[in-house]
Amino acid sequence: MAKTRIGLAGLAVMGQNLALNIAEKGFPISVYNRTTSKVDETVERAKLEGNLPLYGFHDPESFVNSIQKPRVIIMLVKAGAPVDQTIATLSAYMEKGDCIIDGGNEWYENTERREKAMAELGLLYLGMGVSGGEEGARHGPSMMPGGSFEAYKYIEDILLKVAAQVPDSGPCVTYIGKGGSGNFVKMVHNGIEYGDMQLIAEAYDVLKSVGKLSNDELQQVFSEWNKGELLSFLIEITADIFGIKDDKGDGYLVDKVLDKTGMKGTGKWTVQQAADLSIAAPTIAASLDSRFLSGLKEERVQAANVFKSGGVSDILSSEPVDKAKLIDDVRQALYAAKICSYAQGMNLIRAKSLEKGWDLKLGELARIWKGGCIIRAIFLDRIKKAYDRNAELPNLLVDPEFAKEIMDRQAAWRRVICLAINAGICTPGMSASLAYFDTYRRERVPANLVQAQRDYFGAHTYERVDMPGSYHTEWFKIAKQS
Amino acid sequence: MAKTRIGLAGLAVMGQNLALNIAEKGFPISVYNRTTSKVDETVERAKLEGNLPLYGFHDPESFVNSIQKPRVIIMLVKAGAPVDQTIATLSAYMEKGDCIIDGGNEWYENTERREKAMAELGLLYLGMGVSGGEEGARHGPSMMPGGSFEAYKYIEDILLKVAAQVPDSGPCVTYIGKGGSGNFVKMVHNGIEYGDMQLIAEAYDVLKSVGKLSNDELQQVFSEWNKGELLSFLIEITADIFGIKDDKGDGYLVDKVLDKTGMKGTGKWTVQQAADLSIAAPTIAASLDSRFLSGLKEERVQAANVFKSGGVSDILSSEPVDKAKLIDDVRQALYAAKICSYAQGMNLIRAKSLEKGWDLKLGELARIWKGGCIIRAIFLDRIKKAYDRNAELPNLLVDPEFAKEIMDRQAAWRRVICLAINAGICTPGMSASLAYFDTYRRERVPANLVQAQRDYFGAHTYERVDMPGSYHTEWFKIAKQS
Repeated sequence: MAKTRIGLAGLAVMGQNLALNIAEKGFPISVYNRTTSKVDETVERAKLEGNLPLYGFHDPESFVNSIQKPRVIIMLVKAGAPVDQTIATLSAYMEKGDCIIDGGNEWYENTERREKAMAELGLLYLGMGVSGGEEGARHGPSMMPGGSFEAYKYIEDILLKVAAQVPDSGPCVTYIGKGGSGNFVKMVHNGIEYGDMQLIAEAYDVLKSVGKLSNDELQQVFSEWNKGELLSFLIEITADIFGIKDDKGDGYLVDKVLDKTGMKGTGKWTVQQAADLSIAAPTIAASLDSRFLSGLKEERVQAANVFKSGGVSDILSSEPVDKAKLIDDVRQALYAAKICSYAQGMNLIRAKSLEKGWDLKLGELARIWKGGCIIRAIFLDRIKKAYDRNAELPNLLVDPEFAKEIMDRQAAWRRVICLAINAGICTPGMSASLAYFDTYRRERVPANLVQAQRDYFGAHTYERVDMPGSYHTEWFKIAKQS
Repeated sequence: MAKTRIGLAGLAVMGQNLALNIAEKGFPISVYNRTTSKVDETVERAKLEGNLPLYGFHDPESFVNSIQKPRVIIMLVKAGAPVDQTIATLSAYMEKGDCIIDGGNEWYENTERREKAMAELGLLYLGMGVSGGEEGARHGPSMMPGGSFEAYKYIEDILLKVAAQVPDSGPCVTYIGKGGSGNFVKMVHNGIEYGDMQLIAEAYDVLKSVGKLSNDELQQVFSEWNKGELLSFLIEITADIFGIKDDKGDGYLVDKVLDKTGMKGTGKWTVQQAADLSIAAPTIAASLDSRFLSGLKEERVQAANVFKSGGVSDILSSEPVDKAKLIDDVRQALYAAKICSYAQGMNLIRAKSLEKGWDLKLGELARIWKGGCIIRAIFLDRIKKAYDRNAELPNLLVDPEFAKEIMDRQAAWRRVICLAINAGICTPGMSASLAYFDTYRRERVPANLVQAQRDYFGAHTYERVDMPGSYHTEWFKIAKQS
């Protein structure tokens, strides 16, 4: 048998789909999985989906040996210990110059540790974020490979064909940078995804709870929004969701879904990294907190009872609203809040890039997110253009185009949040975005008082507005003298 | 010379003051510092402040030997490497059964690592959070010792006398728990302190920017507030601050202080730990983000210019307000937001306690924070009572007393936030607290949509409201069929 071009280990749905995608693009691929039934299943699918050049192996040695040198093997296994185990299994049969690529959502420091360990064996290593879910993996994901540039070059031709293709801006893949940069960028992508989903959920909440829109109306609204500035995968699937009937009872399925959101770690890491790098990321943090609080379903039911008996019910009050005006306001609020969320994510990536010397290109990241991945949106093209205009832009908010868009929408944005507050429902993400905007664009914030307090009780010193230097005042003594 | 009862190493201001406090309470103390001038300075102060029984040593060996066995030495040096260095220096002369206490703001895992290393040498170890700043250290801090219970017992008599004394509730110290629990609790104390300071800064901002209150009026307002439910150290010093004139020019000093806030790590750790433990802590996170954004002074000045030219100025609009009504509303908003912030901090402590098996007593923590520390407040007595009523209270918000207080204040709280939003100033902490409240007390939140989206693109499954089990729907297929 002729050697295959590449291998893939780890045949859960994502792995199967990515392998089939690679084979379909004309690259013969070897596949392996510890549970061998998955191998047979994948081989079967390759036949059914068009006799694709995909070859299954039940043992790691023959799997590795079936690949042409230098060998490249993509792993798609659970982050953490399974990655280490898979590396140990495969590297036993690999040779100098071969390469392993981790396609999972791995913590970037694990990738850097493994890259070093692999280098000692003469092996190359890439940590490659892959976004797009099952569909993306099968038909074109967005991929964020970081680590060995040499290894990237081995398989660049494959990645360029396998990635989602966006007209006028090319395949959704690029070499991200050294070390764990690919994983880090994917992590922030997921944090941004948390933000997008939360903001959409808040828009839904306001329209449904205050605007009393039916699921049919919600489907129409989101379908309509998906034709304009909000055009994106997440808005599209939201419209789809509102149209689906419950197959186990009356009514719509979305109303039967329990209001408890799961999570897998990348959102948490994003928030922790933002804190570590002194980057404000309140919209992403609000999304994470909302997931945490959603999980406390039983506590919420009990709390609702406590407050209902005191006269605070689920919806405090909602005056009749002008539906068309509300829908338009919510659309604007959602868009403006989204800009702030992306500004936070991009600045987090830049801060890490500076810390690690990765030299990441923010505009290029926006480009490869335009297709394939969960946050794909027409909006990303605006972000790319903002960084094309000024690669050193300190914040997306001050790009002239975005600044104008926000100014046009801020009145609606404020109306929606106040409406929600007075109705007793909350829009934590939209509110956090607005606070971010209102703080960032204010020359003078009340931090002078906080710093005065810190100097009062802890002698932490302060600077002055009118002269350079560092000052300390004996506030206590002066206050008690007078 | 007779042996002293205890030793203290690290004679920056906090260390000097704590040593003098211990000596003043009648416990002969040995002191040591690597830079020996600090030793002489402390000895001199002991003379001046009443011939206190404090003895200085210029070398570590004679310092250690001067203390009665089993020896107890408190370190007050910078967290991190200096602690390891000091331990190495001192432990060389210490004997089995002796004890070292770290009184700094150390990361709790470092304390746990050191406790283990010390145990191998037969030495005991405590990580003890000390709050109260310089004044507290000298006249009565709040202390949070965690680690070896045996070591705590050696010096319990000293700590009980040195701590702040609160009528009817005793000295502000208790044995916190095993391992790094003392440091962890102090860390969350500091996170809560961040929240308090931010909420006060927002109250100041609304009163000054929207209510147009002068510094004299602000001083009066905060003095008045300090007689009621808000009575606390931070409100008291805030009142003091507004009264202090600039000694380098005209006007008030607070207006000359640059609006840039420093920070030292405990707030960041609190936010990161909350994320790690799936605890929503949005008010504390908003405080941290506000500090981050305050640091971007130059960017803020530039952003202000970008938006001013587009018609968005510092204050968008502020209708004339009824000052007395505004002051009363802001007081209520501040109080309600504060309850939410403490609820977050207490739940973070409980989550960690469960994870680590520390068995921490939340009511007892509230008790030892009633005096000595930066967050000391009459309010903490209410928290203690809430946990006395129900030690298993899932959240302070559902304690009957707090629930009633929040219900009484929620209308004012919503008014203040909307007023701020419409004026274009932001109250991120108050808003985050309200979103926390409104989410926690809602039986049904829009997380059903988020979970439906996750199941749509990632097959993450969902639960249903009406039957048990885990479900997956082929949303995409169904949507595209219809």
